Amino acid sequence: MNRLDWNALDTQGQRAALSRPAQSRAESLRSGVEQIVARVRADGDVALRELTATFDRCALHAIEVSEKEWREAELRLAPELKAAIEEAASRIDAFHRAAAPQPVTLDTARGVRVERMLRPVHRVGLYVPAGSAPLPSTALMLGVPARIAGCAEVVLCSPARPDGRCDDAVLYAARITGVHRVFKLGGAQAIAAMAYGTESVPKCDKLFGPGNSWVTEAKLQVSSDPEGAAIDMPAGPSEVLVIADENANPAFVAADLLSQAEHGPDSQVILLSPSSSMLDAVEAEVSAQCAALPRAGIAEKALSQSRLIAVASLAQAVDVSNRYAPEHLILQVDEPRSLLDAIQSAGSVFLGAWTPESVGDYCSGSNHVLPTYGYARSYSGVSVASFQKQITVQELSPEGLRTIGPCTATLAAAEQLEAHRRAVTLRLAALEDAA
Amino acid sequence: MNRLDWNALDTQGQRAALSRPAQSRAESLRSGVEQIVARVRADGDVALRELTATFDRCALHAIEVSEKEWREAELRLAPELKAAIEEAASRIDAFHRAAAPQPVTLDTARGVRVERMLRPVHRVGLYVPAGSAPLPSTALMLGVPARIAGCAEVVLCSPARPDGRCDDAVLYAARITGVHRVFKLGGAQAIAAMAYGTESVPKCDKLFGPGNSWVTEAKLQVSSDPEGAAIDMPAGPSEVLVIADENANPAFVAADLLSQAEHGPDSQVILLSPSSSMLDAVEAEVSAQCAALPRAGIAEKALSQSRLIAVASLAQAVDVSNRYAPEHLILQVDEPRSLLDAIQSAGSVFLGAWTPESVGDYCSGSNHVLPTYGYARSYSGVSVASFQKQITVQELSPEGLRTIGPCTATLAAAEQLEAHRRAVTLRLAALEDAA
Repeated sequence: MNRLDWNALDTQGQRAALSRPAQSRAESLRSGVEQIVARVRADGDVALRELTATFDRCALHAIEVSEKEWREAELRLAPELKAAIEEAASRIDAFHRAAAPQPVTLDTARGVRVERMLRPVHRVGLYVPAGSAPLPSTALMLGVPARIAGCAEVVLCSPARPDGRCDDAVLYAARITGVHRVFKLGGAQAIAAMAYGTESVPKCDKLFGPGNSWVTEAKLQVSSDPEGAAIDMPAGPSEVLVIADENANPAFVAADLLSQAEHGPDSQVILLSPSSSMLDAVEAEVSAQCAALPRAGIAEKALSQSRLIAVASLAQAVDVSNRYAPEHLILQVDEPRSLLDAIQSAGSVFLGAWTPESVGDYCSGSNHVLPTYGYARSYSGVSVASFQKQITVQELSPEGLRTIGPCTATLAAAEQLEAHRRAVTLRLAALEDAA
Repeated sequence: MNRLDWNALDTQGQRAALSRPAQSRAESLRSGVEQIVARVRADGDVALRELTATFDRCALHAIEVSEKEWREAELRLAPELKAAIEEAASRIDAFHRAAAPQPVTLDTARGVRVERMLRPVHRVGLYVPAGSAPLPSTALMLGVPARIAGCAEVVLCSPARPDGRCDDAVLYAARITGVHRVFKLGGAQAIAAMAYGTESVPKCDKLFGPGNSWVTEAKLQVSSDPEGAAIDMPAGPSEVLVIADENANPAFVAADLLSQAEHGPDSQVILLSPSSSMLDAVEAEVSAQCAALPRAGIAEKALSQSRLIAVASLAQAVDVSNRYAPEHLILQVDEPRSLLDAIQSAGSVFLGAWTPESVGDYCSGSNHVLPTYGYARSYSGVSVASFQKQITVQELSPEGLRTIGPCTATLAAAEQLEAHRRAVTLRLAALEDAA
């Protein structure tokens, strides 16, 4: 890990200290994905089979998971894992339900009722990666809010293993959250299939979920095509920023840094502390704990791009964190709530010594599909609202039109939109005639 | 207008009946915008001046509107128009405030507190078109929710007239909603300036507002670049769909269709009715009213692409409307609320004879920046939430970790993320040691 002193850096050095591994849309990536998308649009299922054979080394018979496969997966799954999936789902359900948008009704003037009603996105497509290991937790994080929103059809794609099967736990998580159909597809081809539809895969209105750079590039491409599909957010490699004071437990801090670093070689971890002895202690702990990890190689690669940064104060740490806008922000300080008001940009925040990031990854109830790569400056994590549309409704009585019609007419005239004005004045005249 | 009978059409005919004027991202548009964006990124203010001279035929001295210009605009503006802008702003404020997201706190297990907190997007860029006429109402629709959200810096771009001035009413609307800085910029160059920043224009985190095809293409390009900016939604030409029963007032229906048609030659209007005499009557009214409009030429062009469609029932009309997913949906029927439950996709809905679309365009309180071109299937109109991020927060007590730690550890093990598991088990061990 790199040791830096924030206040010894010039502007450029500070920028470099918070830079992420480059996420440039390399021309080769862009054109590679364009070709995959074009093949799927042109050849449908045939293209999906060919691309799956190439990329997943898997010869698909049926693209869709059959009812028999669902049942067998459920039978094979260990009871303890089933119970954990159900337990996680119930807390995710509880929090997402509590945080779901509500309808609104307000009379903004006498006779002028304005409302907001909520409607689910009709058909949604969920993507669940299975790169180094399949992620049943992601199926929960997407399936639960889709069910609460009331989406009519929920489709899920996750790559099959070379033996042609989808992961049992992913299937079980999908089943209990009410996912309707699962397809054994991964990568850019899965995104293309859900965005445009094929013989097997239905065309979806909006796509959700994390993925590697091919998946992310495909999501960007289909979301900027009016014939494609909307997306939840751009996504990049996972990242964490920890702020620790002198009383933090270095072993806990190190464990949290490592739980991010093991995600992938392009993950990024940053520690900010006003205590240089804390930075020393954490650095030593990271080395010790990392050696014992099965994914030590991945974590070491991620750590090589990561930083331990000395800051002058906790207030400065929060400022630096806001500039970075981390996906995960962990506050291992004595009074974490005292810093919360100043937090402006982060995906999800973890307070105190007993709140490791992994509880949010799995089962505290919050969502783990979060904005990365600084997107937390402008995007939020996935929630029920991501699966809904908010539709406004207005209803005027004759009195209502008499009240706000003149204002409407004045503004329409100022904008030289005469038909807009007449749609009001014609009605006001009719009301006068009737009176 | 084209007369069609929905039930006499085959599948392809039905699809054609609901097709929109093509919005293909023509290669020439795409590369034209790419060049403008690249020029602004490379040459900053110099490029902005050159592009403004070319496209707006305006030699800019200062790019930013000065305090003196703000004051003069306010002095010049007619009191009646000022009052209308203030009246509209107050109702927009009331509804948007009522519909703003609220913080949430929930204990999802003993000792596990999960929260959602709200933070404004720090710096936002608003785009207010001034094509055929400047649109102060759009400044209100963007400025009011930005103010309620608490955005730290609100920047607005609107093209100057050839005399180098921004519209007085736009400036006044911007001023009373708390917009901080206004720049005399339009088109793709305005979007590029706000997305990347120049010497004069600050780089913004998220961009909002409608615009022509150049503006929309520029928004798509900058939003798919990690170095660019987020956007509210893709936007296209305005559109309305009216459902009328046999008791509707044909003059009112015609007035509403025309108030959409006058927006631009690429606007689209559709009328659905189970009553063929209603379709006849509206067609006659449209011709009569259109002739008297100052923008009759524009409206006629839009009408030439528009459709009067006979349907079997109001229920079928709602089905067809859901397929089309109109930006504006007007229900001129006896009992509009009886149809509301079945409405699945629309930007904003107008109920009954006394609710012309123009009240929503200006001052009922709802927002007029709405998803067009079928995007209402997956996008919502602009609201306070568009200017905010929702950040989740979790805090566990030792008891909380004892409660949900085992579930976390089981799921982490299933996903082969050992460091995630250890971040929990290490803490649980520490708790046991302390006990």
